Amino acid sequence: MWGKRDDMVVHQVDPYNAEPPPRALAGEDTTAVDTFYSRNHGSVPEIDPDAWTLRVDGLVDRPATFGLDDLRRLFTEHTETATLQCAGNRRAGLIEVRDIPGEAPWGPAATATARWAGVRVADLLRHVGVHHDATDVAFTGADIATSPATGAPYGGSIPARKALMPEVLLAWSMNGEPLPAIHGAPVRVVAPGYIGARSVKWLERITVQEEPSDNFFQASTYRLLPPEVDPSSTGPGDGVALGLVAVNSDVLSPDDGAQVPAGPTTVTGYAFAGGDRTVVRVDVSTDDGQTWRQAELAAQLSPWAWRHWSATVEVPRGDVTVLARAWDSSAALQPERPEHVWNPKGYVNNSWARVHLHGV
Amino acid sequence: MWGKRDDMVVHQVDPYNAEPPPRALAGEDTTAVDTFYSRNHGSVPEIDPDAWTLRVDGLVDRPATFGLDDLRRLFTEHTETATLQCAGNRRAGLIEVRDIPGEAPWGPAATATARWAGVRVADLLRHVGVHHDATDVAFTGADIATSPATGAPYGGSIPARKALMPEVLLAWSMNGEPLPAIHGAPVRVVAPGYIGARSVKWLERITVQEEPSDNFFQASTYRLLPPEVDPSSTGPGDGVALGLVAVNSDVLSPDDGAQVPAGPTTVTGYAFAGGDRTVVRVDVSTDDGQTWRQAELAAQLSPWAWRHWSATVEVPRGDVTVLARAWDSSAALQPERPEHVWNPKGYVNNSWARVHLHGV
Repeated sequence: MWGKRDDMVVHQVDPYNAEPPPRALAGEDTTAVDTFYSRNHGSVPEIDPDAWTLRVDGLVDRPATFGLDDLRRLFTEHTETATLQCAGNRRAGLIEVRDIPGEAPWGPAATATARWAGVRVADLLRHVGVHHDATDVAFTGADIATSPATGAPYGGSIPARKALMPEVLLAWSMNGEPLPAIHGAPVRVVAPGYIGARSVKWLERITVQEEPSDNFFQASTYRLLPPEVDPSSTGPGDGVALGLVAVNSDVLSPDDGAQVPAGPTTVTGYAFAGGDRTVVRVDVSTDDGQTWRQAELAAQLSPWAWRHWSATVEVPRGDVTVLARAWDSSAALQPERPEHVWNPKGYVNNSWARVHLHGV
Repeated sequence: MWGKRDDMVVHQVDPYNAEPPPRALAGEDTTAVDTFYSRNHGSVPEIDPDAWTLRVDGLVDRPATFGLDDLRRLFTEHTETATLQCAGNRRAGLIEVRDIPGEAPWGPAATATARWAGVRVADLLRHVGVHHDATDVAFTGADIATSPATGAPYGGSIPARKALMPEVLLAWSMNGEPLPAIHGAPVRVVAPGYIGARSVKWLERITVQEEPSDNFFQASTYRLLPPEVDPSSTGPGDGVALGLVAVNSDVLSPDDGAQVPAGPTTVTGYAFAGGDRTVVRVDVSTDDGQTWRQAELAAQLSPWAWRHWSATVEVPRGDVTVLARAWDSSAALQPERPEHVWNPKGYVNNSWARVHLHGV
């Protein structure tokens, strides 16, 4: 379905929501298009690229409408390697603490990395002229939300300060191939360092404004609620809007629960830090956090990409739990337990990674 | 001494290193100059403002030297409310876990907030023309380090991307008064969201370059080392350079160990998040983290400032521990215990705040 590999874990068929098995991401600097997770709130729009237009309006000097040819003619193409991470990534670990009804049990593979190519949002914004009082840049897609059924197009915003940075793209290409329909063709936003929800697919409109987006998916969901709140009783503005990504990591291989030969075993995973931060260290423990050793970190592909890591641990006969935890370039460390970060919508589980192995 | 209040906790006389009692910061949006912590590595230079010059060189089109009058004439004055936090803030909590020889036991008051006024580093850099390949902007002060005795001027760098942001100032004024000698007169850097060590005082030189500063205080110290390393055996580049500030918080009143009347007691503190992040929530617990309630947050003074918080807790007769923990706008939470973040130089203790009260 949608050109994805056969072993995708499909959380929902329409809207299509699916992630690969964690091991499919292991050791791969960039993620193949057929393996890249897909998170949607409506059916995939069918858009004729020749008829597609992008409207740019709001607090700009020269509101304008662009076709694909206009974007290609007016602006230089740039490529950026960037990781996208769904705010619901690793929700399954929170559901183990307490149920989260109505939300998909995403594992750690709602995180993936691609080489995106397209034009800079900054170049487009400078072309139309942004007013000095602008604080936010809102994006609206062509997809109509059915889950939940808002009946309105999907959208969201990022701060103008971010939108003017060179890494924020209107992407038409993914890993050197034309952007596929399931990932937002003909043009999507790629806002590195922000939750995937802000990288709006099937982009149709950019609005420069003085406040964050009031779209349902920013004002009423993708928000951190305190544990005691019933999410069905909340309204726009309750809790805290998510945006930047917090430092996170998980194990990709071996599988959680795997039997492995007793003795040295290589454990691999990824770590990711949002915003202007990068991953600087990953620690691994097999004695419940009493002692830690540093994992080997793979190269930093770009300031906006995850880092893979690996460590060889000694697996005894019987059960052992492998813990992993990442530090970002501010020396921020992941919090210890999912109980600490549990929230009613199940976002941003960035507690320490835990996999159980059985040595035989 | 140096115009500071009489009850400063003086960790060292020369270089002068001192912080106020925590309660002196409680509830004060900005910190009086006489209360603002002071962290130094050398004696305070005496600089004649009329003779002072600033050299700007490196990867720039037009290297230049500026006097104070030049800065005032060429550039617009801007004011920014910003919090500075020493990377050693709250080290005392790490020393309780394991001793950290040779490093001062800073409490939570190596954090303070002022209204800084001066010119934007970005305006100065645009005036001299920054090369496209520049990645870092290095600052050098007039102070010669004696603790440790490097015999060389103090310095450090920030990414060029940050230096070109409007909030980074060359400040000559603090809370509306001329910058005092102890805080870097006539001109210091204020780099909001970065560890205080990067806000170089007694500034004499700005160098635009292609790599981070190789100054001792960036290449060889102010680095996060793994717990097992002996810091006396390390060299330049070991561990990870600190830079951006991780989310943190502490209690400012009542004092740790205070006797208070049993019944409702108001606990107050601060929380701070570095970089582009702000504090969005603070939780307080009196049952060892089993349950939490949200503190009241004071207004966000600027994107670069701490937020004070307060909560009324029920203090029983006998001993009780009050825990506090902050969340930043990426939904990053402070890690639980100082044992988790302990490191050989004692930097970035951002574990949950803990104060012990005794109800009578």
